[in-house]
Amino acid sequence: MASESGKLWGGRFVGAVDPIMEKFNSSIAYDRHLWEVDVQGSKAYSRGLEKAGLLTKAEMDQILHGLDKVAEEWAQGTFKLNPNDEDIHTANERRLKELIGETAGKLHTGRSRNDQVVTDLRLWMRQTCSKLCALLWELIRTMVDRAEAERDVLFPGYTHLQRAQPIRWSHWILSHAVALTRDSERLLQVKKRVNVLPLGSGAIAGNPLGLDRELLRAELNFGAITLNSMDATSERDFVAEFLFWASLCTTHLSRMAEDLILYGTKEFGFVQLSDAYSTGSSLMPQKKNPDSLELIRSKAGRVFGRCAGLLMTLKGLPSTYNKDLQEDKEAVFEVSDTMSAVLQVATGVISTLQIHRENMAQALSPDMLATDLAYYLVRKGMPFRQAHEASGKAVFMAETKGVALNQLSLQELQTISPLFSGDVSHVWDYGHSVEQYTALGGTARASVDWQIGQVRALLQAQQA
Amino acid sequence: MASESGKLWGGRFVGAVDPIMEKFNSSIAYDRHLWEVDVQGSKAYSRGLEKAGLLTKAEMDQILHGLDKVAEEWAQGTFKLNPNDEDIHTANERRLKELIGETAGKLHTGRSRNDQVVTDLRLWMRQTCSKLCALLWELIRTMVDRAEAERDVLFPGYTHLQRAQPIRWSHWILSHAVALTRDSERLLQVKKRVNVLPLGSGAIAGNPLGLDRELLRAELNFGAITLNSMDATSERDFVAEFLFWASLCTTHLSRMAEDLILYGTKEFGFVQLSDAYSTGSSLMPQKKNPDSLELIRSKAGRVFGRCAGLLMTLKGLPSTYNKDLQEDKEAVFEVSDTMSAVLQVATGVISTLQIHRENMAQALSPDMLATDLAYYLVRKGMPFRQAHEASGKAVFMAETKGVALNQLSLQELQTISPLFSGDVSHVWDYGHSVEQYTALGGTARASVDWQIGQVRALLQAQQA
Amino acid sequence: MASESGKLWGGRFVGAVDPIMEKFNSSIAYDRHLWEVDVQGSKAYSRGLEKAGLLTKAEMDQILHGLDKVAEEWAQGTFKLNPNDEDIHTANERRLKELIGETAGKLHTGRSRNDQVVTDLRLWMRQTCSKLCALLWELIRTMVDRAEAERDVLFPGYTHLQRAQPIRWSHWILSHAVALTRDSERLLQVKKRVNVLPLGSGAIAGNPLGLDRELLRAELNFGAITLNSMDATSERDFVAEFLFWASLCTTHLSRMAEDLILYGTKEFGFVQLSDAYSTGSSLMPQKKNPDSLELIRSKAGRVFGRCAGLLMTLKGLPSTYNKDLQEDKEAVFEVSDTMSAVLQVATGVISTLQIHRENMAQALSPDMLATDLAYYLVRKGMPFRQAHEASGKAVFMAETKGVALNQLSLQELQTISPLFSGDVSHVWDYGHSVEQYTALGGTARASVDWQIGQVRALLQAQQA
Amino acid sequence: MASESGKLWGGRFVGAVDPIMEKFNSSIAYDRHLWEVDVQGSKAYSRGLEKAGLLTKAEMDQILHGLDKVAEEWAQGTFKLNPNDEDIHTANERRLKELIGETAGKLHTGRSRNDQVVTDLRLWMRQTCSKLCALLWELIRTMVDRAEAERDVLFPGYTHLQRAQPIRWSHWILSHAVALTRDSERLLQVKKRVNVLPLGSGAIAGNPLGLDRELLRAELNFGAITLNSMDATSERDFVAEFLFWASLCTTHLSRMAEDLILYGTKEFGFVQLSDAYSTGSSLMPQKKNPDSLELIRSKAGRVFGRCAGLLMTLKGLPSTYNKDLQEDKEAVFEVSDTMSAVLQVATGVISTLQIHRENMAQALSPDMLATDLAYYLVRKGMPFRQAHEASGKAVFMAETKGVALNQLSLQELQTISPLFSGDVSHVWDYGHSVEQYTALGGTARASVDWQIGQVRALLQAQQA
Repeated sequence: MASESGKLWGGRFVGAVDPIMEKFNSSIAYDRHLWEVDVQGSKAYSRGLEKAGLLTKAEMDQILHGLDKVAEEWAQGTFKLNPNDEDIHTANERRLKELIGETAGKLHTGRSRNDQVVTDLRLWMRQTCSKLCALLWELIRTMVDRAEAERDVLFPGYTHLQRAQPIRWSHWILSHAVALTRDSERLLQVKKRVNVLPLGSGAIAGNPLGLDRELLRAELNFGAITLNSMDATSERDFVAEFLFWASLCTTHLSRMAEDLILYGTKEFGFVQLSDAYSTGSSLMPQKKNPDSLELIRSKAGRVFGRCAGLLMTLKGLPSTYNKDLQEDKEAVFEVSDTMSAVLQVATGVISTLQIHRENMAQALSPDMLATDLAYYLVRKGMPFRQAHEASGKAVFMAETKGVALNQLSLQELQTISPLFSGDVSHVWDYGHSVEQYTALGGTARASVDWQIGQVRALLQAQQA
Repeated sequence: MASESGKLWGGRFVGAVDPIMEKFNSSIAYDRHLWEVDVQGSKAYSRGLEKAGLLTKAEMDQILHGLDKVAEEWAQGTFKLNPNDEDIHTANERRLKELIGETAGKLHTGRSRNDQVVTDLRLWMRQTCSKLCALLWELIRTMVDRAEAERDVLFPGYTHLQRAQPIRWSHWILSHAVALTRDSERLLQVKKRVNVLPLGSGAIAGNPLGLDRELLRAELNFGAITLNSMDATSERDFVAEFLFWASLCTTHLSRMAEDLILYGTKEFGFVQLSDAYSTGSSLMPQKKNPDSLELIRSKAGRVFGRCAGLLMTLKGLPSTYNKDLQEDKEAVFEVSDTMSAVLQVATGVISTLQIHRENMAQALSPDMLATDLAYYLVRKGMPFRQAHEASGKAVFMAETKGVALNQLSLQELQTISPLFSGDVSHVWDYGHSVEQYTALGGTARASVDWQIGQVRALLQAQQA
Repeated sequence: MASESGKLWGGRFVGAVDPIMEKFNSSIAYDRHLWEVDVQGSKAYSRGLEKAGLLTKAEMDQILHGLDKVAEEWAQGTFKLNPNDEDIHTANERRLKELIGETAGKLHTGRSRNDQVVTDLRLWMRQTCSKLCALLWELIRTMVDRAEAERDVLFPGYTHLQRAQPIRWSHWILSHAVALTRDSERLLQVKKRVNVLPLGSGAIAGNPLGLDRELLRAELNFGAITLNSMDATSERDFVAEFLFWASLCTTHLSRMAEDLILYGTKEFGFVQLSDAYSTGSSLMPQKKNPDSLELIRSKAGRVFGRCAGLLMTLKGLPSTYNKDLQEDKEAVFEVSDTMSAVLQVATGVISTLQIHRENMAQALSPDMLATDLAYYLVRKGMPFRQAHEASGKAVFMAETKGVALNQLSLQELQTISPLFSGDVSHVWDYGHSVEQYTALGGTARASVDWQIGQVRALLQAQQA
Repeated sequence: MASESGKLWGGRFVGAVDPIMEKFNSSIAYDRHLWEVDVQGSKAYSRGLEKAGLLTKAEMDQILHGLDKVAEEWAQGTFKLNPNDEDIHTANERRLKELIGETAGKLHTGRSRNDQVVTDLRLWMRQTCSKLCALLWELIRTMVDRAEAERDVLFPGYTHLQRAQPIRWSHWILSHAVALTRDSERLLQVKKRVNVLPLGSGAIAGNPLGLDRELLRAELNFGAITLNSMDATSERDFVAEFLFWASLCTTHLSRMAEDLILYGTKEFGFVQLSDAYSTGSSLMPQKKNPDSLELIRSKAGRVFGRCAGLLMTLKGLPSTYNKDLQEDKEAVFEVSDTMSAVLQVATGVISTLQIHRENMAQALSPDMLATDLAYYLVRKGMPFRQAHEASGKAVFMAETKGVALNQLSLQELQTISPLFSGDVSHVWDYGHSVEQYTALGGTARASVDWQIGQVRALLQAQQA
């Protein structure tokens, strides 16, 4: 009889179980990560049962004490799983019964694994969101500090990977830091939607025993309670949102990694990774490879794959709990670990990266000032479209003659437009060029300082 | 000379262009949807140029007037594209020049298509978010109204598609409505991140001509301005977020559609779609198919595919604008159209759906009260685990004897537990059963009313 | 000095390594699965080196013997990893050196981890493809056997989940079996592309030491050798194909699982899962849930997520090996395990499923013969479109009168068309109905037998 | 009455239809692409009906003639859609009826839109596969021709984007060409699975009118017939496979595009795109952007998004036709167009690309010969691991001294190993270096020639 096997559903089943099916169905291999929040949830629930009159004070104390014992065993690594422990909830309750006897059988009154598991997962993810947010802030702070320190380094700005205009190195750093502030903003919003109590929803219909869900909420420090028991036990929006948050954040980091991989090539030569974040080749002795950045770049795929997988699993499911939802946890655990590593490695890379200022300076070339040359004409009154065309002709002339753009003589320029005069020589100064971009968000020093201030203020506001 | 072709980049190119490449590169086939916001953005920009002293008042008025003319042509369907109009920005400016002459050439001063296109897209999406939010609210309202009207209809609640417990039909409706309130909450958050002004970021470095971005923001009624010009011109978070919002929302709707398709089968027989949302078979005369619901269910795939596609396109891109980003617009346009249709069709389906109350009532069966039977024993003092097992034995006994659970005699029940007595007959009342679930979020009438109130309050708060 | 740490790249690095980065970079936690194929590959490689004159016969024997020892330790569970063993290749070579001394340092001559790891992975996947193919064949065979045995059971065929036409239960089974034969066909094609030797490609440029790759191919029993060393070390088509194969196969199984979940509801009542593949509820004693089928259905998401993740990781990577490719292995291992479980559980479900013949028979209803009624008129000479409309009118008339379609009197039918006569009564026989569908692929008995024969012949051909 | 609207399902519906639902449901906006194959399929089907005795020879001729007329109208652009033409099948049959009268109503006898649409789609895709295969072959041929012509150009091979070893430029070209040969192999396999006849499967149960499906197969030149009517009308494996084929192919092209974008930067300077495949900047006159390559790179996302979308739509669908399947066609049409453009643009880019041989030559640096230095020691008898470490020390010494690796004196080298002698100077020759890589698949000239021969032979075999 299956009831002898101690399975939760007790006295009804008469068939045997296929061992492959047992393993397929079991989640203990990964949901054991939830041991602590499972105990936490059960403790709150036993307080709810006591208030509802379903446990005496003494029974409650016995259960609370027993649960503390269970937690202690997990914390000390002495908890022993047994083969029938198919999930963490079964395992903890089985152990509780061994420790305190039949009273343990009262703990699950009015509760279902459907509301229990999602309560556990929300408690776990709430912590994770906090941890990841802290790591994200640390990365952003590191970037902003570095941007402040290296504010006077100029280098080429690229669009389409072609040299475009001179910019400040800090402007580049801040472009990625600003993107990450949106990630931290989003993570805080996700966390708020994670932080909602489902306990007290039962399997589907709710709780029939006068349970005070507000008490549970307060005990477990949730921000709100779920509105509908059917939705509460089967919606996984907060999981999907978390996975998507991670997908977008790693996509940002994949772009930053791509830039740094390029800037670290021999050909660009702008940055050099610390040895701590590089590895060598088993064949080629001279190689020093940016493995850290490549791994960061790659994780966008893995993380997004988990997001895609979950959404596909959810699509078209009938209402309420279906076993398909068991797919949520491994995705969350894996992505949490990945994000934790990615954010810390990114912080390490940024904080130890060396920059090669001379290479950066040497990479600035006069053709990158062609836009400034057009603006020169604009300031002399020429409509921009004509000025753009005139500057384009100058570029073409220089290329044809095989000289740099700033080496065209005044006479040559004047064949293109009579508006050129001696003061055109002021155009050819990179420092002067960047200082023009004073509008908010631009690459002038004042504007970069403004950005630094804005990001710092944002971080403060988010941490509050 | 390519300059003669009137291409934006003017005087430099000397090669010919492959017609397949031309078409591959061109976006006018779809970005023409942006005609109105492109004009709107240009009008604001010309005001900015005037304030910065780059246009005289007269020139600005000429441009504004010309742009109004351009808009009028689009609105009236008389705007004529010409073969060199590769995108909407080129088309509008080309036409402006035809209308007002060389002054048109001043409009693009200090602006790049990089900041122009993303400004247009944000303006367009801001409107779209508002429209979709209104459609979503209407759907939710329809559902809540229906839930209120049919509050006293009971039917089986399912988990794992197996009959679980009796619930109110309204409880089912609200389970989906509550899910959709999270979608509207998220859409408002996305809209806030859409509603940020990038104009004034130029191609990469910012704006060097003393442009007042705060003025542009106010003119275009944006909520904030972007912080970093490199990020502003190349981040597409707001697009990815929008596509993910739509993916999650359609995933919700796919689950509701799945339920209704099942409930509309001959076998369940709970609901009947209005003819307006059904279609027939070209072969089988008796068929009436729930095409509307199947299409709703299917769209979760399509919409998510766009989200997946965009993220994959973004992954690993170098900083700043790359032409890859051109993939954003078709995704947005298609998904907006899809969402608009899906939400309206869902509203139509819900508001015209017929329910078959007798079938619903007949589908309730005594075995669905097995949990209540366990609670009966719990209330008599038996620990839940034992009560669950005892109730399971009763189910097994009834199955073995081939009778309904409520047809077991008292003596038979007492062979399972001596705690059973005459009052067990009260358990077999579905109306009584649902009324037990009074905890917040449950299926008791009071709790359903509370849910209705909560969702209505949420909608009001969101609309404020 | 890092060289003291025994890392593969030896003498150059001077920095310390961040422990989080170490872990982030390390793959030993999962690539240890490759221990056996890594040894196998190294043994073949040492034979290649001997033939090329880079090892003496004695050295080769020493290496071969040492590698056997390494394998033995793995097989017996006595292999001890040390903290610097970042991957299985390093671990095995480190151990080899401990066992046989400096000669071990000759094994990697002309080899790179780039060609080594992809050789290992191909060897591992070749085995996996064979195993999964065998499991797939077993599932198909089980289905075909069952289809043959239950050939005379009729039940409703559905389209759009609405009752459509009577069909044989075996026709349904075969519809899924036939889909799976495409999966086995595809898997064999994937396996052929897996079974290509990359060893001898070095890091990028090939092998400069006169290595005979044909000898390596023969030693390792590969079907062909890779054509280009740069491609060989960095293409992961065979991984992407395998993951997509699994995605499509699980999508098939998700559809079969969906059907069976529906057919197993109280409402349909056609099938009943064996207890071995069901589980109960922790709250509701009467529940018996089809967890096995729900898990099968869910895996389509997970597996596809891995496919999506890999493609996104690959997208836009520069040529040749980048560390991003390290993402391939966990995806392969996880998906292989999942497929192995899914296929076996599906086989178990199908072979133990009970069918309820009476419920199936009772679910056939006269309206499902409306198409046959139209064909009746067609056979009397009416164009199909008119016959379809006439039959539709009969359905409508029956619905309006509240009778079954076959209860319309001849007079009533004749108000619709004078072509109806007494022989219309022959239409109302389900057995007669199915027997009409004799065209190949139809539901007549002869056609079902033909299908069984075709599938069996296919399996034989595939196994050959 | 809906029957008056001429909808296919005729006489039963009584409700009105929501215009938004009409549009949502309608597919004519895109499935009109199928007009030609729909006519083709119907012509074959009418021949089948005639053979089965359901059409007289005269009726068949009338229908064939009418269908030719329909096709002619489409071809000449004179076909007029009417508002009730919800799909191409309805439109063509409606028009046929207008042209030939009631006989048109016999054409659909025993056919369902379920088997009709999938027959049309397979016919259409068969053509498309052929066209795309031809374009792919042309691209590969272009690459191979170029590889042959520029076989003697050397440049740096990179791994991890760090300079690794000198290789032939042709070796790089071939690495991508070889990848594409796998795509053409796969496309041919997909085409074979596309090329299977489903017609004669009806809606679900097959065909009851003695239709000879073998005749249909021969008429339409299919390679085989589908085995099971339920599977035939609802499986979309061939669509999923096609979309995945395109995903993998564009992933390959995204990697080639990434390389070329990098090689075309000022910093690498190896290649220059033809003006025909570049565009300029609306702001920066000096810019010439590789838009063609960026668009190619981006399409991997879009195409894969379609694949993801379809699989998600298919996941968990019940058996047989559901309207969800309507999502297949837009995906196929869009991806076909995209692939056609991508392949042609890639061919254009490759065939017009300029290479800068001097920059390529200058980018070769002595440190890239560090592996050869290790091999030098290996050839003198040092185990590779020691040789690798010794070479690493030389690299480190050169870096420390600030000289190139080949400028270390013999004495200096001898401090690392006494095996160094005067002949070490032969190592520093790039031409000599590449010529060592003679193993199959390597970068030696003979091996590159072998690759060219192999790819050409493959193409010939595929085209046969």
